[in-house]
Amino acid sequence: MVIDNNFYMSLAVGEAWKYQGLTYPNPAVGCTVVGKNGELLAVEAHKKVRFPHAEVEALKIAYYKLTNNKDILQKQNSADIHNYLINNHNNIFKDCSLYTTLEPCSKVGKTPACANLINKLNIKKIYIGSKDSFQDDFNSNAEFGVLKQECDDLLEPFNLWQKDKFVFFKWAQRLDGSTDGIVSTEKSRKNVHKMRDVCDLLVIGGGTVRADRPTLDARLVDGKAPDILIYSRQKEFDKTIPLFNVKNRKVIVSEDLSIVNNYKNIMIEGTQKMMNLTKKITDYYLCYLHLADKFEVLNLKKEDIISWMKKDLNL
Amino acid sequence: MVIDNNFYMSLAVGEAWKYQGLTYPNPAVGCTVVGKNGELLAVEAHKKVRFPHAEVEALKIAYYKLTNNKDILQKQNSADIHNYLINNHNNIFKDCSLYTTLEPCSKVGKTPACANLINKLNIKKIYIGSKDSFQDDFNSNAEFGVLKQECDDLLEPFNLWQKDKFVFFKWAQRLDGSTDGIVSTEKSRKNVHKMRDVCDLLVIGGGTVRADRPTLDARLVDGKAPDILIYSRQKEFDKTIPLFNVKNRKVIVSEDLSIVNNYKNIMIEGTQKMMNLTKKITDYYLCYLHLADKFEVLNLKKEDIISWMKKDLNL
Repeated sequence: MVIDNNFYMSLAVGEAWKYQGLTYPNPAVGCTVVGKNGELLAVEAHKKVRFPHAEVEALKIAYYKLTNNKDILQKQNSADIHNYLINNHNNIFKDCSLYTTLEPCSKVGKTPACANLINKLNIKKIYIGSKDSFQDDFNSNAEFGVLKQECDDLLEPFNLWQKDKFVFFKWAQRLDGSTDGIVSTEKSRKNVHKMRDVCDLLVIGGGTVRADRPTLDARLVDGKAPDILIYSRQKEFDKTIPLFNVKNRKVIVSEDLSIVNNYKNIMIEGTQKMMNLTKKITDYYLCYLHLADKFEVLNLKKEDIISWMKKDLNL
Repeated sequence: MVIDNNFYMSLAVGEAWKYQGLTYPNPAVGCTVVGKNGELLAVEAHKKVRFPHAEVEALKIAYYKLTNNKDILQKQNSADIHNYLINNHNNIFKDCSLYTTLEPCSKVGKTPACANLINKLNIKKIYIGSKDSFQDDFNSNAEFGVLKQECDDLLEPFNLWQKDKFVFFKWAQRLDGSTDGIVSTEKSRKNVHKMRDVCDLLVIGGGTVRADRPTLDARLVDGKAPDILIYSRQKEFDKTIPLFNVKNRKVIVSEDLSIVNNYKNIMIEGTQKMMNLTKKITDYYLCYLHLADKFEVLNLKKEDIISWMKKDLNL
């Protein structure tokens, strides 16, 4: 295997994918810091809104690796880490390279600007995957376009949030396409609850609500429950179904899918019938492929779905 | 992400998987070499029988990274690399760690013993995934059992070759389980040809032979064609079907699957019907899952198949 700039960037890309979607409304971003002779100092990602950006997480760990000083590990808040690094870096990053999947932010937002931090630390070289069209030019000794396509792919949900809204369809299946009985596991359910926690609307079919009597909250991760759109022609539902009794949530029963336009980050859950009914409003597909004792999450674009469901979905 | 011994071993495991099956009759092995301060110097794998072992490939690249001396890059032969390293190492590995998925070989075989090489290079620390029960104890400063389960999983085909024979079933499908029409791509076909090159028998159903009129050789990689067992009750075939006219290959038409016992590395190709007919002799499953413009290769154990095909296969 060739250990080069692409390799270091690929580690950042892989780490960022672990938090795809969960960073809403921020983009999924990963960052690798490499030392003078190619020491792998840190591979980190942005994990959640208001948490430090990927570059800050990575520089924090890299600082600790280079100095063995544990003080910085106590700092969780982005501004605190920024300040600590700016005041204590002593040019230890002067031979380091930083790989970030997205151009560092140059404006102060919920957290201080990463571009300012990076410039002040005198990092030898900055490698960037995607250019952020919302940023000013990043003026450091930066090289753009490392693994550009892979880094751009990471940004697809974010770009849609920015423009308007992001709608993704999530389903679980076995390898033969079957979905009958219980497909999910405790671990995959926890994963789905993390996603619900950051969604503001969850769309589900009326038949599923009647049959499964679900709660559709994010209790497994102590998260907040999204609003619910029950997509159904028939308006009457048994109000003892748990989803109706979750606090701080709105439940809408409607056959009008344009309701999703009132929301920004929308998950649809269902199987093939629901996939077909919602195909016109869906941007992205997330398949939980269950094997014997594990599952793989497949991130799929519209064209991936079209290729295998053409017949069934009349696409 | 935590960058620790498990991480470095996981790079070796990932690299080894890229050559799983292709190393027949040798095991798939990967190796990472890390420098004094955590510099990632090399991640390599054993690629093919008579090619250097993973440790030798990795030490070769690591030597070049540490010395910038290109002489060693000219050496392809395992004994030449061994000799060069033993004569020229100058203790440059004294602060390095080596991570190998399998205990280094201690006996001279088709290539010199890796354990001897590693001992002579005074490498600081050796991390080993799986213990090789065929080896004497490896007497270096070694730590065993790093990512043991992942490393043991890598050895499953090898262990079966050693004991008797290895039979794996390969098929291609789309995400909904469908296999009609053309599923494979140029790239996936090339991948399959590499596999055929190292198999000594390929089993295929009579119906597929009549319908597809295949060649079933390894021409896309200039490889050798395996013998063919056409599993069929009906013995008459049109001898102008290309597979009958490939040089240095035996074609057997039979409904007796025990013919596989005369071979060591056996691939069965087919779809669900063939999977069902051959389930009793199959050790392992390889699924080429095709999406729009890419495919993923899923390495599946018997229990993975049972979980999703229970109904269809009456397992």
